[in-house]
Amino acid sequence: MRTIDLNCDLGEGFGAWKMGDDETMLGIVTSANIACGFHAGDPKVMYDTVRSASAKGVGIGAHPGFLDLYGFGRRTILGESPSDIERQVAYQIGALIGVAANAGAKVTHVKTHGTLGNIAAENDDLANAVARAIRSVDRQLYFMVMPNMATERAAQAHGLGMMREIYCDRAYADSGNLVSRSVPGAVIEDADAAAANVLAMLDDGAIRCLSGKRIPAEIDSVCVHGDTPGATTMARVLRDLLEANGYRVTGFAAARNGETRTA
Amino acid sequence: MRTIDLNCDLGEGFGAWKMGDDETMLGIVTSANIACGFHAGDPKVMYDTVRSASAKGVGIGAHPGFLDLYGFGRRTILGESPSDIERQVAYQIGALIGVAANAGAKVTHVKTHGTLGNIAAENDDLANAVARAIRSVDRQLYFMVMPNMATERAAQAHGLGMMREIYCDRAYADSGNLVSRSVPGAVIEDADAAAANVLAMLDDGAIRCLSGKRIPAEIDSVCVHGDTPGATTMARVLRDLLEANGYRVTGFAAARNGETRTA
Amino acid sequence: MRTIDLNCDLGEGFGAWKMGDDETMLGIVTSANIACGFHAGDPKVMYDTVRSASAKGVGIGAHPGFLDLYGFGRRTILGESPSDIERQVAYQIGALIGVAANAGAKVTHVKTHGTLGNIAAENDDLANAVARAIRSVDRQLYFMVMPNMATERAAQAHGLGMMREIYCDRAYADSGNLVSRSVPGAVIEDADAAAANVLAMLDDGAIRCLSGKRIPAEIDSVCVHGDTPGATTMARVLRDLLEANGYRVTGFAAARNGETRTA
Amino acid sequence: MRTIDLNCDLGEGFGAWKMGDDETMLGIVTSANIACGFHAGDPKVMYDTVRSASAKGVGIGAHPGFLDLYGFGRRTILGESPSDIERQVAYQIGALIGVAANAGAKVTHVKTHGTLGNIAAENDDLANAVARAIRSVDRQLYFMVMPNMATERAAQAHGLGMMREIYCDRAYADSGNLVSRSVPGAVIEDADAAAANVLAMLDDGAIRCLSGKRIPAEIDSVCVHGDTPGATTMARVLRDLLEANGYRVTGFAAARNGETRTA
Repeated sequence: MRTIDLNCDLGEGFGAWKMGDDETMLGIVTSANIACGFHAGDPKVMYDTVRSASAKGVGIGAHPGFLDLYGFGRRTILGESPSDIERQVAYQIGALIGVAANAGAKVTHVKTHGTLGNIAAENDDLANAVARAIRSVDRQLYFMVMPNMATERAAQAHGLGMMREIYCDRAYADSGNLVSRSVPGAVIEDADAAAANVLAMLDDGAIRCLSGKRIPAEIDSVCVHGDTPGATTMARVLRDLLEANGYRVTGFAAARNGETRTA
Repeated sequence: MRTIDLNCDLGEGFGAWKMGDDETMLGIVTSANIACGFHAGDPKVMYDTVRSASAKGVGIGAHPGFLDLYGFGRRTILGESPSDIERQVAYQIGALIGVAANAGAKVTHVKTHGTLGNIAAENDDLANAVARAIRSVDRQLYFMVMPNMATERAAQAHGLGMMREIYCDRAYADSGNLVSRSVPGAVIEDADAAAANVLAMLDDGAIRCLSGKRIPAEIDSVCVHGDTPGATTMARVLRDLLEANGYRVTGFAAARNGETRTA
Repeated sequence: MRTIDLNCDLGEGFGAWKMGDDETMLGIVTSANIACGFHAGDPKVMYDTVRSASAKGVGIGAHPGFLDLYGFGRRTILGESPSDIERQVAYQIGALIGVAANAGAKVTHVKTHGTLGNIAAENDDLANAVARAIRSVDRQLYFMVMPNMATERAAQAHGLGMMREIYCDRAYADSGNLVSRSVPGAVIEDADAAAANVLAMLDDGAIRCLSGKRIPAEIDSVCVHGDTPGATTMARVLRDLLEANGYRVTGFAAARNGETRTA
Repeated sequence: MRTIDLNCDLGEGFGAWKMGDDETMLGIVTSANIACGFHAGDPKVMYDTVRSASAKGVGIGAHPGFLDLYGFGRRTILGESPSDIERQVAYQIGALIGVAANAGAKVTHVKTHGTLGNIAAENDDLANAVARAIRSVDRQLYFMVMPNMATERAAQAHGLGMMREIYCDRAYADSGNLVSRSVPGAVIEDADAAAANVLAMLDDGAIRCLSGKRIPAEIDSVCVHGDTPGATTMARVLRDLLEANGYRVTGFAAARNGETRTA
């Protein structure tokens, strides 16, 4: 029986502000990418999200982004050196490890957020900076990467475990990267269509591009969005379809670490 | 030969802004309390300060404060619950551990900053929250406390190693707490007088209050200020006087951890 | 026919975060207190809120708070001098005037937010600082105050027009201030009961305290909350009841300025 | 006798942090570009800077930048729409007008800061957004622009008064824009050489490019830097040289507004 992980960005409130229906989503996904205070999140939100994820057996990941609360990490910020980014990522991972320890839980993976993630996927210098940050803080952490992109190369170059993810509701370009949202067809809004597309990619062991091109890829996780209308519905539809087709939906890091321990 | 530690708040810049002459001070003190991004500090400043401290053999401490960049952690903020403070402290300690790991160094102690420190010294609930945060993240960390105050009680109650500190240039009230800055004589501005006062307290094994009262106390470290005019001069005068009188000025945590290891 | 104004705190989003159902509320109330970027709000949120309020004929007010985004202006921050608060209030009023001008609209009143408002209601120094800030920026602005409290005294002392408000869903202490939320009965959760209480106070021309005490007061506006569950329902119930009982619900500043102009 | 204005970025502290020797610089320059809280500055710093400038007869300008305290407005932030930038600029101008009113002073000009300024100089959409913001808040404000660049075109298109500036210590490209700092010779570090270069451009009525090309230009103001080592020395050397060569150094806006009023 094949296993697959479902991941989602969570803990994206700040102070008095909420975002997304985290409680429902934590009942569906198996890995949570938790904002670390730079683009969203604060110690209380992080703690509450870690506690809830932990209680539900959901894997806990750090989700570092640009230091840009106003822009939610989505503004394009250029000109920071890879070494500055490396420190920012190390800071955020450490912060979540601290809060998770306070909640009696452990961080298992790291995924970059927003524009930092978009740039890292295409820029080897930045992807390597992120990988160095991860390895320096805890080399047991999994680096969530996009297959065939700079982040996968960086994870391999630095000897990090990888969680290779595809996106549930996004179309792929022939480069293996996501099609820009400004292009018609870039976002798959229908939950059934998105889920069917994911199932086809998993069954095929390949990313299916908008052009029809196939890019063979190992796929460990599927990213579902957390803050769009209908987000929990799409996640539920996807999980149900995958389980109906013989996949066991389970936390990647937990499963892999469990295997390692018992090996 | 008796040993004594000298500690100082450092790494208090943010972005384009600098504060204090850290490089000179790191040549004098033996423990650095490094701001963690809430009241001052950012990942780059933290990294650079850790690197420099580490290269000079200076102990690396987390210096968590209120989430209040504008107020530099010195505004009095009331009404946050001890559990919220606990998460904030765990976050900041973790963040510095992450950055320090990125610099190949280890954090050895924790000291609370500004108003958070002032309140924790007098409020057992808050002091216990800080102690719980420290213990949850790394129970090997030393908690820098004021003798006879709530922080010392909290460290003992939670089984944490302690660094008991006195202040170089501040007068003491009969309670064992600092005299408020608004009271005449609260601050000792003359470097020689401040150093002589410290020497007398160390020789006597007691805090000497403004009233003349003696409070017997174990003293592990002396706090020198980093951001006042003449700060480095006072620190140098103090160190020279202590060494001339038979004290070995050395990092407390490093020495203690070394003893532990070789025991 | 007596007129009454209904006011509500609006524009309390920030960046990617939303708060409250502003569009619905702007169809019910007649004065909007718009966050100015210190505790909530950003230039885009402020602009959009001003535009929408303006299109619906709702009065536009500045809603200055403490510089404390994390705490949403609700943390108790002590120790800032009245003169610092005066600059902060002048800054925020000016900022909203700038954004409103960009939207082709005018600011008509000022109401302090959260803890700043709570402290100003009881502290003459702080209330006077706010009044000086308002007068310095535009002496035509109305100062929204609580009857018989420090803010009313400050408005009178500085020759400012006043909008005297009562709270829709809060019980009053004999001092004329609100009963602390920690006291049972402090918040009136039933919409009909809250509306009936408001109607009784308006008809009586007096604040009715929890103890039964009457405090005669001129009442120009009623504050309804914007960010609680059922907020828009309570506002609608209140407006309907007042209109059914012969009150014309209309913007105070607009009406008063109109009278002034035609006088 | 020809007049020339000298302008400088000032008021760039934040909270506990200082930057530059504002007091000395305010004794040399005739126009101050004052940070408005987005990249630097807070209400107290702004107030103190306005008061000091006003007392010395120095013109008061708003210096809006990106909402990016960490990056001091120098990070390149892309993807914000011109309309969002327009609100941000209107906000910042309004905020300084509010604080200046509280200090009994008036704002006379606007200059964009850092990366916002760099982009606006080359991008007509952004330059027009800034010009619209200025005009909407107060059409009497002068827009400080670079000759022959997008900002000058925008000022003209929107009917704004202009202060055309050259930079004291920077080399010019044939486009009329500054040579990038990464190019050798981009920055003139010698105070005498920089001052002589300015004098030559003023006498010639043209920008002199690094290539030798002349670009005829009206020049109203010279920008001197405020936060570099030797900044006040260079400003003093420049002022002395200009005065020794028959220029009257005087605030542009004050002089122009004075002429207007007496006309």
